[in-house]
Amino acid sequence: MTMTAAAIHEDMGTRIEEALRRRFVHHSAAAEAYGSEFAALWRAAADHSLGGKLVRPRLLLDIHHALTPGDVGSATLTPAAVEVAAHIELLHYAFLLHDDVIDGDLTRRKRPNLIGALAAGTPAATEEDALHWARSSAILMGDLLLTAAVMGFARADVPADVRSRLLDLVEETIVETVAGEHTDVALSHGIIAPDLTTILSMSVYKTATYSFSLPLRAAALLSGSSVSAERTLTSVGRHIGLAYQLQDDLLCVFGDHRAHGKDAFSDLREGKETAIIAYARSTDAWDDIAPRFGSAELSMRDAEGLRDQLRACGAEAFVTDLVGDQLDAVHTLLADAQLTGEIGADAAHTILSTVSRLEGRRA
Amino acid sequence: MTMTAAAIHEDMGTRIEEALRRRFVHHSAAAEAYGSEFAALWRAAADHSLGGKLVRPRLLLDIHHALTPGDVGSATLTPAAVEVAAHIELLHYAFLLHDDVIDGDLTRRKRPNLIGALAAGTPAATEEDALHWARSSAILMGDLLLTAAVMGFARADVPADVRSRLLDLVEETIVETVAGEHTDVALSHGIIAPDLTTILSMSVYKTATYSFSLPLRAAALLSGSSVSAERTLTSVGRHIGLAYQLQDDLLCVFGDHRAHGKDAFSDLREGKETAIIAYARSTDAWDDIAPRFGSAELSMRDAEGLRDQLRACGAEAFVTDLVGDQLDAVHTLLADAQLTGEIGADAAHTILSTVSRLEGRRA
Repeated sequence: MTMTAAAIHEDMGTRIEEALRRRFVHHSAAAEAYGSEFAALWRAAADHSLGGKLVRPRLLLDIHHALTPGDVGSATLTPAAVEVAAHIELLHYAFLLHDDVIDGDLTRRKRPNLIGALAAGTPAATEEDALHWARSSAILMGDLLLTAAVMGFARADVPADVRSRLLDLVEETIVETVAGEHTDVALSHGIIAPDLTTILSMSVYKTATYSFSLPLRAAALLSGSSVSAERTLTSVGRHIGLAYQLQDDLLCVFGDHRAHGKDAFSDLREGKETAIIAYARSTDAWDDIAPRFGSAELSMRDAEGLRDQLRACGAEAFVTDLVGDQLDAVHTLLADAQLTGEIGADAAHTILSTVSRLEGRRA
Repeated sequence: MTMTAAAIHEDMGTRIEEALRRRFVHHSAAAEAYGSEFAALWRAAADHSLGGKLVRPRLLLDIHHALTPGDVGSATLTPAAVEVAAHIELLHYAFLLHDDVIDGDLTRRKRPNLIGALAAGTPAATEEDALHWARSSAILMGDLLLTAAVMGFARADVPADVRSRLLDLVEETIVETVAGEHTDVALSHGIIAPDLTTILSMSVYKTATYSFSLPLRAAALLSGSSVSAERTLTSVGRHIGLAYQLQDDLLCVFGDHRAHGKDAFSDLREGKETAIIAYARSTDAWDDIAPRFGSAELSMRDAEGLRDQLRACGAEAFVTDLVGDQLDAVHTLLADAQLTGEIGADAAHTILSTVSRLEGRRA
């Protein structure tokens, strides 16, 4: 029985959603024993987590499918791969929660995040109390989701040597992501100098590693790929993830704010140290830009002025080129890997489709 | 070659410290790749974590030793038991860090905790920035230590069925501890009513489960004890842990502040909902106590007045009796388990020595 690529992709999405829903139902039910507030926290976490685009677990299953020889349908979606994929999504939720606590964010994509919803729904005495309750709950739920994610790797129904490598992979990923977040906080307080190299490696560590390298490497491990193929996919994931982050930065400053979900110019108001800003700092235009950069009260008109200056000084073009460099690197790595037979044509093709969806991204 | 009990106990402490030090050295070295700030965070975490009394891992090894048949020395301290014991200590550090973030604490036992030290040592622009940097770092280090702790269980060098039960144990423990902490925060904001039953179960979940039931159960698992022995040790751990927490509460209000490490009357200033307060609420004295309870500006004289009222209304005697009830329950459980042969005389004796150290506690 053969299935079209689209049907397989659809089926994968359904199976990931089912696996995630099962995890939340299990945890919410177990939480009842500890009182209604704790059970309510689990249900709120499920509400705010489920329904996403599932970029990371879909990538894992797509590549796993492409790397598995002789495959004709989604029957080779082993339960182990679906479970690991779902737990990568749980890890993503855990990171988002602690990130939102650290950044003080109450919204995500213009809607209240878990913290915003908990703060609004709490009968606490003061607004400060409500925020403390909501943030404390988010720290604790992040701990639970982080634990659940690691457990998913530790309990993967695969041979012992594969599980051991999966454990190394998820630990390395968590350390690298946390290191990236720590560097990001240090940058925001001026504790580390915001040079381009630091910002690019921070982006790789904080976002690319867990969002792209992790699913690609897990797929390789679960498909029995060689260590060298896994190494190539690590680099491929880093380049894709960096391209993705740089595009995010570009969209926030130069994008169409009606099309993407972020607040217009929020990075400029928050004084976020991005590659755009690092480039601008190296130009003569910086003296003009600096006084308004990071001002919370920036009007729409001032923000548009800043945007135009960032464009004029060459920052937009520079970062757009950087995105191109990352995508070129992906093409080169995959072409080389295909020549040596390290990665098959199917897998290379699947990765390049992900990249091409990225290239046309407006949101 | 035989060793005295004291020499064995000493040897265990040394081996736990070595295992912990190895973990921190490993992580600090790996952190260097992510920049000096991240490596410094690991070193600071090691400084603030190492050097404790190691109550939890020592308990595991003591009981493991007592439960292991035919044992004559510390040679039966399997590396797996030492590793699991050390990772329980890492879990303890992770919980302390996130607890300190949630409680806003900058000291522990009158010395700066990790957050206080990071805030004081940071060249941030404002005090608020320094605190944000320190708290963000503590959230992230808590995530790293939580991950490291779970990894220790996932990688334990024991048969697959034992490892699977260890994983269930550590997951259950983390969920229960987080549920207890969540209830504690809810109590502090008046979101949950502070009745005695809620406060006692919160104390069991937040402290007793991971501090006492976890080491006892892990020891049982690693020694090949029966499931019913493990169940008995779960209850024993809860009673010991609850006694420990209630004694802590008593010490803070009625204890000799020169002897214990806590700030005099800090629980009364912070308005902490303890069993003492829950009892006092049920008496006629509460109307007099309530206006000053939870006042941050409480003078030493006022606090002493509150203490005397809490004593006069019977709260001290009530909670002292509760401690006695817990210790009685431990004696009964162990006597029954010895009669049925579920737990040997050595293990029961070792647990009762821990309990007797508890009974004479002044700090």
